[in-house]
Amino acid sequence: MSWESIAATKRQALKDSIPAEWVIPAGIFPPKDQLDVTTFPRESGFFTERELEITSTSAIVILSHLSSGSWTSEEVTKAFCKTAASAQQLTNCLSEIFFEKAITQAQELDIYFQETGKTKGPFHGLPVSLKDNFNLIGYDSTIGFTSLVNKPATYNSTVVDLLIETGAVLYCKTNVPTAMMISESVNNLFGRTVNPQNRNLTTGGSSGGESALIAFGGSRLGVGSDIGGSLRMPAACTGIFTIRASAGRFPNFRSRACLEGQESVVGVSGPIAKTLEEILLWSSTILSLEPWTRDPKCLPIPWRSVETNKSLKIGVLWDDGFVTPTPPVARALTETVEKLKTAGHEIVNWPATEHLEMLYILGRLFLADGGKSVRDLLEPTGEPFRPEMKAYEEAKEISVHDLWQIHARRNAVTKIYLDRFNELGIDAILCPTTPYSSVENGKFAYAGYTCVYNLLDLPAITFPCGVSTDKNIDTPYSDHKALSDMDANIQKDYSAEAVHGMSVNLQLIGRRLEEEKLFAMTDQILKAVAL
Amino acid sequence: MSWESIAATKRQALKDSIPAEWVIPAGIFPPKDQLDVTTFPRESGFFTERELEITSTSAIVILSHLSSGSWTSEEVTKAFCKTAASAQQLTNCLSEIFFEKAITQAQELDIYFQETGKTKGPFHGLPVSLKDNFNLIGYDSTIGFTSLVNKPATYNSTVVDLLIETGAVLYCKTNVPTAMMISESVNNLFGRTVNPQNRNLTTGGSSGGESALIAFGGSRLGVGSDIGGSLRMPAACTGIFTIRASAGRFPNFRSRACLEGQESVVGVSGPIAKTLEEILLWSSTILSLEPWTRDPKCLPIPWRSVETNKSLKIGVLWDDGFVTPTPPVARALTETVEKLKTAGHEIVNWPATEHLEMLYILGRLFLADGGKSVRDLLEPTGEPFRPEMKAYEEAKEISVHDLWQIHARRNAVTKIYLDRFNELGIDAILCPTTPYSSVENGKFAYAGYTCVYNLLDLPAITFPCGVSTDKNIDTPYSDHKALSDMDANIQKDYSAEAVHGMSVNLQLIGRRLEEEKLFAMTDQILKAVAL
Repeated sequence: MSWESIAATKRQALKDSIPAEWVIPAGIFPPKDQLDVTTFPRESGFFTERELEITSTSAIVILSHLSSGSWTSEEVTKAFCKTAASAQQLTNCLSEIFFEKAITQAQELDIYFQETGKTKGPFHGLPVSLKDNFNLIGYDSTIGFTSLVNKPATYNSTVVDLLIETGAVLYCKTNVPTAMMISESVNNLFGRTVNPQNRNLTTGGSSGGESALIAFGGSRLGVGSDIGGSLRMPAACTGIFTIRASAGRFPNFRSRACLEGQESVVGVSGPIAKTLEEILLWSSTILSLEPWTRDPKCLPIPWRSVETNKSLKIGVLWDDGFVTPTPPVARALTETVEKLKTAGHEIVNWPATEHLEMLYILGRLFLADGGKSVRDLLEPTGEPFRPEMKAYEEAKEISVHDLWQIHARRNAVTKIYLDRFNELGIDAILCPTTPYSSVENGKFAYAGYTCVYNLLDLPAITFPCGVSTDKNIDTPYSDHKALSDMDANIQKDYSAEAVHGMSVNLQLIGRRLEEEKLFAMTDQILKAVAL
Repeated sequence: MSWESIAATKRQALKDSIPAEWVIPAGIFPPKDQLDVTTFPRESGFFTERELEITSTSAIVILSHLSSGSWTSEEVTKAFCKTAASAQQLTNCLSEIFFEKAITQAQELDIYFQETGKTKGPFHGLPVSLKDNFNLIGYDSTIGFTSLVNKPATYNSTVVDLLIETGAVLYCKTNVPTAMMISESVNNLFGRTVNPQNRNLTTGGSSGGESALIAFGGSRLGVGSDIGGSLRMPAACTGIFTIRASAGRFPNFRSRACLEGQESVVGVSGPIAKTLEEILLWSSTILSLEPWTRDPKCLPIPWRSVETNKSLKIGVLWDDGFVTPTPPVARALTETVEKLKTAGHEIVNWPATEHLEMLYILGRLFLADGGKSVRDLLEPTGEPFRPEMKAYEEAKEISVHDLWQIHARRNAVTKIYLDRFNELGIDAILCPTTPYSSVENGKFAYAGYTCVYNLLDLPAITFPCGVSTDKNIDTPYSDHKALSDMDANIQKDYSAEAVHGMSVNLQLIGRRLEEEKLFAMTDQILKAVAL
């Protein structure tokens, strides 16, 4: 079978796995040129009030309803499955669908609760969506490769095992870009996932199936992964929350890696959701399960209570010296800084001195095997490299000795960053998550604001800062002095009209392995911007 | 200058750095065929009673004398410098000597104490010896290479900075093998360090300068490093204590690495001393300084108080399936197990199932650059590869892609080990540290019992178990069924006569990053064997 046939068959199977009653009737199917489809659940009449209530309720409140018995897992699960089915039809955000299995599991959980009066665990009955790379026995983890179709997992990822033990209901897996190494979610197998808030725009990548599903309302809590911004870019494109935790904090063992065995930059798992409270709930719950007893890469650091200073000292990285944030992002950062000052926080500038060096290092590290890991997954079916992966197609393998020299350079940069944290006496760094609010499909060109923190292994939360793109204010820079060719192209491509109304996310960076403090500081910042 | 001339000049300078009054007079200089020179300080008449009292006192007691003002740092420092000078003359254990600087520093500390009534820090006035690879501004860190002579460090290792802040007095650096990648301490620059308890025997490597110095009495507390057993093998050869902590627990930033940038197996720093209490003191003191605020690789895990079960469940690895422990070590393990049972601890067998795989993986990882890192340090002076480093000379560089595949195999093994810890429900693994009590110089052939725990990143303490080699009991195996050619050679080489009287160390392995618990369990085991 050709890769095209494999892809077509898989896509058809995915389509067929949506129950007939959840296929959107032609009469109410939004037209292709309807950009914002997040209105569909509420405006189409396709959903009951109860379903809409469920899917618009925070996971925390859902769990309280489930543990009090006022809601059943079956009704909650069905509401999310049905909404996810619509999300799939309107944004192409799913890669695996197992609604029936999920509903059966939900019914079993309800029976358990009715019989014992107890919950199975802290996520009892809550539907949780999974990015495609997390292995679930019996289902593919293709990460966008046709060669990985019909190779169902024979074991669960550690985080999947833990979620099942908490009583979470798993119901779908979500789309990613090829190898999870593109900043949008597009591959030769499933095609492209689009942003439900504006389908001309990207939902980001590589956890873009998750961000589209959550932004649409088809999941309250998803699990993604991040090796260069793969959680943060999708969250930023859709105006939701995520954390890229330090390596070893959350379990990521036995999930499908993009570059198996590559450990110079460590991929991590993490939650993605509409509120800070929901990603905090996931984080503290997962750590309450002591993941280090299962995942040998996890650190035995329990979730700790912390206190932060009432007044924070924040270093602001205005730009990274290579790409200027587009006008809405620059404005959002400026306005946020002003609000932070008003709220009594202290602001200092954080220089971009090491960022070009880090970009160079990252390019060398991700391409160190000359693209062989990617090529090995394309060749069995003759699938071509996607144009977004030209760098992998053209990469030359470096020597192990060169790799070691690059490690040494990375370590030196990491030390400089740490020392400056101390010298400036700051609590956190505030910076853009990406140069974009979102951007037209196919135009996401730069991951440099996220990937550097993977290199440095610093925790990062991205959050909507309350500013949205306004085409009347956020006009293109006139007389822009480009920092690089990349910058010039990004500014040339920028269209205020295209991204009008899109929320802007910023990024807060903490000290390594101080995720708890980072959450507390983000909460302080959210309060400051809401003043 | 030829490498031979560089080496001769450096050795002469080292010799000349010993003050004339501490050069052992010819009349009392032990003859070359005197094997045990640890008797020298007490029997030669070269030392005062006060000096002997100081150097035979635990660091903990020394510190209490210093902080109460009953001893001065100057007298303590002079006693250790003088004894270290003898150790150097009798075992060739030092690489850098800076006694004068140390004494000046000690005098300053004494003045500070006299004037303020306060100590500078927790190690106020205590002489601490440093393995050669730790950078100290103004001194070489040659790690045995002639090409690194006269290239004094321009910065301190992080652990050196911390030690200085504690008020420790640094007075010498200790010898290592070339590149720190030989299990004995021999190089083309300084030659060979021998075991002060029996100069025909090795003091182990690569922290063998430390073990010789401490066993002789020239230091109470040393700092070494371990990437494959480099702390544990020297401690085992001399019957003293050390811990190979999990990566990230103790600071090891900015020390000279053998294979710069190699991170597949992480080298760690650690203490080496005559008692468990002294290495515990170092460990808890270093962590009280929050090394993660200086060393970006350090984890923010403070030293924690722990409780252990009164009765431990211990998995025993009797042999690793590749090399049988020589008779004294096998007997020591058997006798220790019996004592543990008597003390109420539970014993189960730990299988060696994964050890051959781990040895293969380790070989591939250390040689991954085809020996280029080592060759690059030999070539500038035309220094030849030492015969012990044939594997590095003959290694072929592997591809980055192959390296990544090896990482994946390592991770799979690590998971098996962790799962078995859980399945057996054990607290720790007890096993040999090396196949030897000690062994004749040049015959240390196997590091497989230590290096696997570097690969797995599990903490390991090696301790003298109270059993010493007895030539009348520990006769060679008759009719030995060799596990491998290596095993056959090691048993063939084994001479009970040669190692008669040498103490046997065993090794206790805990869970990753649970160093505190490992200390507590080792203490329980020491109590059990002393019953």
